[in-house]
Amino acid sequence: MEVDFAQWYTDIVKKADLIDYSSVKGCMVIRPYGFAIWENIKNDLDARFKATGHENVYMPMFIPESLLEKEKDHVEGFAPEVAWVTHGGSEELQERLCVRPTSETLFCEHYANIVHSYRDLPKLYNQWCSVVRWEKTTRPFLRSREFLWQEGHTVHATAEDAVEETERMLNVYADFCEDDLCMPVIKGKKTESDKFAGAVSTYAIEALMHDGKALQAGTSHYFGDGFAKAFGIQYSDKNNTLQYVHQTSWGVTTRLIGAIIMSHGDNNGLVLPPAVAPVQVVVIPVAQHKAGVLEKANELTERLKEKFRVKIDDSDNSPGWKFSEYEMKGVPLRIEIGPKDIEKNQCVLVRRDNREKTFVPLDNIESEIERLLKELATSIYNKALKNLENRTYACKTVDEINASLAENGDGFIKAMWCGDEACEDKVKELTGVGTRCIPLQQEHISDTCVCCGKPAKHMVYWGKAY
Amino acid sequence: MEVDFAQWYTDIVKKADLIDYSSVKGCMVIRPYGFAIWENIKNDLDARFKATGHENVYMPMFIPESLLEKEKDHVEGFAPEVAWVTHGGSEELQERLCVRPTSETLFCEHYANIVHSYRDLPKLYNQWCSVVRWEKTTRPFLRSREFLWQEGHTVHATAEDAVEETERMLNVYADFCEDDLCMPVIKGKKTESDKFAGAVSTYAIEALMHDGKALQAGTSHYFGDGFAKAFGIQYSDKNNTLQYVHQTSWGVTTRLIGAIIMSHGDNNGLVLPPAVAPVQVVVIPVAQHKAGVLEKANELTERLKEKFRVKIDDSDNSPGWKFSEYEMKGVPLRIEIGPKDIEKNQCVLVRRDNREKTFVPLDNIESEIERLLKELATSIYNKALKNLENRTYACKTVDEINASLAENGDGFIKAMWCGDEACEDKVKELTGVGTRCIPLQQEHISDTCVCCGKPAKHMVYWGKAY
Repeated sequence: MEVDFAQWYTDIVKKADLIDYSSVKGCMVIRPYGFAIWENIKNDLDARFKATGHENVYMPMFIPESLLEKEKDHVEGFAPEVAWVTHGGSEELQERLCVRPTSETLFCEHYANIVHSYRDLPKLYNQWCSVVRWEKTTRPFLRSREFLWQEGHTVHATAEDAVEETERMLNVYADFCEDDLCMPVIKGKKTESDKFAGAVSTYAIEALMHDGKALQAGTSHYFGDGFAKAFGIQYSDKNNTLQYVHQTSWGVTTRLIGAIIMSHGDNNGLVLPPAVAPVQVVVIPVAQHKAGVLEKANELTERLKEKFRVKIDDSDNSPGWKFSEYEMKGVPLRIEIGPKDIEKNQCVLVRRDNREKTFVPLDNIESEIERLLKELATSIYNKALKNLENRTYACKTVDEINASLAENGDGFIKAMWCGDEACEDKVKELTGVGTRCIPLQQEHISDTCVCCGKPAKHMVYWGKAY
Repeated sequence: MEVDFAQWYTDIVKKADLIDYSSVKGCMVIRPYGFAIWENIKNDLDARFKATGHENVYMPMFIPESLLEKEKDHVEGFAPEVAWVTHGGSEELQERLCVRPTSETLFCEHYANIVHSYRDLPKLYNQWCSVVRWEKTTRPFLRSREFLWQEGHTVHATAEDAVEETERMLNVYADFCEDDLCMPVIKGKKTESDKFAGAVSTYAIEALMHDGKALQAGTSHYFGDGFAKAFGIQYSDKNNTLQYVHQTSWGVTTRLIGAIIMSHGDNNGLVLPPAVAPVQVVVIPVAQHKAGVLEKANELTERLKEKFRVKIDDSDNSPGWKFSEYEMKGVPLRIEIGPKDIEKNQCVLVRRDNREKTFVPLDNIESEIERLLKELATSIYNKALKNLENRTYACKTVDEINASLAENGDGFIKAMWCGDEACEDKVKELTGVGTRCIPLQQEHISDTCVCCGKPAKHMVYWGKAY
């Protein structure tokens, strides 16, 4: 990991059986173990969306070229990287269809059909699907030509309601990342040059990986009424006057799996947060050929299944081989149980993150597992938080940024900015780091822009990004 | 419904808010109410798949043309109806990619990568996704260019294991349709002319709709080692000899929603089986402006949420308007609660299927709801079964088939068959009915083929189909 982070990452996605490559460049096979992580992410997030009043729908995967072109900024942002369907069977289509890179245009067309009165608002829709963006450089989970995601699309009566929704969903994402992925994030606003094609403003959560590079883990966009005007989404208000709706969209992707790997993994492999681990506890019988061991291990597994995602490995492989296997796969807790343990009515619990061993009486093993899973979650969160804090550097000038990079390597740079895009570009050119976000929680580093020395408007997080 | 079944169907999918049309012909927007039915179907089936040892994965949505062509029968069956991607962004692709119409070729490629030893077998994979088939004639849910489905793909060490899996999944589908969709089905084998492109044999479950037309509700295919040979999927057996795997695939689609509509719907709209109904009980306050009514109705709703999918409608619309609305949407039970009911500590429960009213003391309302939901499920199952039985006609000759069609209209025809494809075609030509399946449960109608008079091999269900 310390020597070649990129290779370490690629090794893990393969060795932990998360993905297989397919014959289409940039499209991956998500294997059962990888997909089960995504299912857990999905189930948890979906419950959070439903608890905040959202409903799931399914939109077509194809967008006619003329529909994609309806909103000017949007088509400019996406057209260069879409896959085009030109033929159905042996016939050439009259109009090209793109495979959705994102579904704003489809939701807008639908909302224009179904929204008529203020009574119809808000509409809070979400969909889980795959989307396609024809990227040149691809990496499993982090940047792939096809990826799985959810995209929320909402329409509201007022700008205030839409802004509130944008912030609400940013917070839902941040809470999910912190609670369930044990990954601290910075909540902030993207700069103008970095916002979503067609948005008034884009908010994001940014996390810091082991290697000091930033990863945008989720985005939430406020659209104002720009799309509504382009697509004619209007409603009659209480005074029977026609008004345009105000709109948002927000999404997270399978990229979160990449974030988990690079936040918590180590030289033995994955370390999975208990909330999304496909297997939370693996039971490994020791000296399993001896009388009673397998029976007891199976009995324990069945008992634990009522409370945890648990699996027994009673294959012919040696215990040592199994220990490595489940360390590679990041299973949070391992139970070792052999003849001596059975005699003493106990077993051994080993934490994945620090390999700490605890001897636990079988009688109250459930509460011990619960305690250790919680401790592990807190512990890997704190470790990731410490990484983020230790690798965040305040800089007042471009020279200080370069000095920090030379001395400390990659990380977040906190520095002031005048708000001018020219300075953003120049810092990038001179240091290699770009703006990540204008954090909602502002700090004062200095009075003047890190680049031009004019009065500063914002404190900005800068960094290199995945 | 009796006058124009097709129009009745189209009205329901729109009026019950199941779908909206999109600007791409044959691609539909599945609206929240329709999608919630699919989510319930999916959750229930997924649990059944996992209980039988299957794991979920995700394969790419694109198949390179050369990969699709690897199995001869398969490409002949599917190439004429696929959507072709020819450009990524502004660049023409070196090889065309089709949007998956089904994923056998992708699973085969992956299995060839990951299966090496008998220890790796079986692999029991499933995926939930959307697929595309460029159909000429389309109808919401029944035949659309894009549809949602699940596709199971499994590889086994022996032919026996694969055949057993094919039958197991056919039974899982049949049980699901009967238990949860309240829809009786005929389990059978497709004839040679009707089997899946590349399969050794195709099994299907066939249901009979209100109008006497058959609907294929799910299929399960046995592939033998044909795909394994085309894709080189081999494993070392215990004697270290290379063997080809034996394979299956099986799927059901959003078509099941169409089947629900046409099995249980009536002239007032949808009738939903309780197991998949997004709302099982709707609470409608009567005289809701009177003191205490809304409070009590809300309190009741909250209480029932612990056990049922329940919703209150406290909008300004009249109770009569609401009754029609939830009848159209097929909500199994309606609760009416007004001032007089509250005085007597009771409410009124009304069944959607037969509109039967029951006055129920609030104290034990949960058990009454449970009882009525069960009764409704049994009752609509029996009604559908009666429709299937009443509309199944045994015929010994082609003339008898035509006479039955003239007298009874559409339905299942049970008739003997010699096994010759020419007879299958001729019956279709002379009567308009085709073979639906060779039922697993055979009966003896006569000794000779309904068409040619030669000795019969099978009893076959014939009919017109969606």
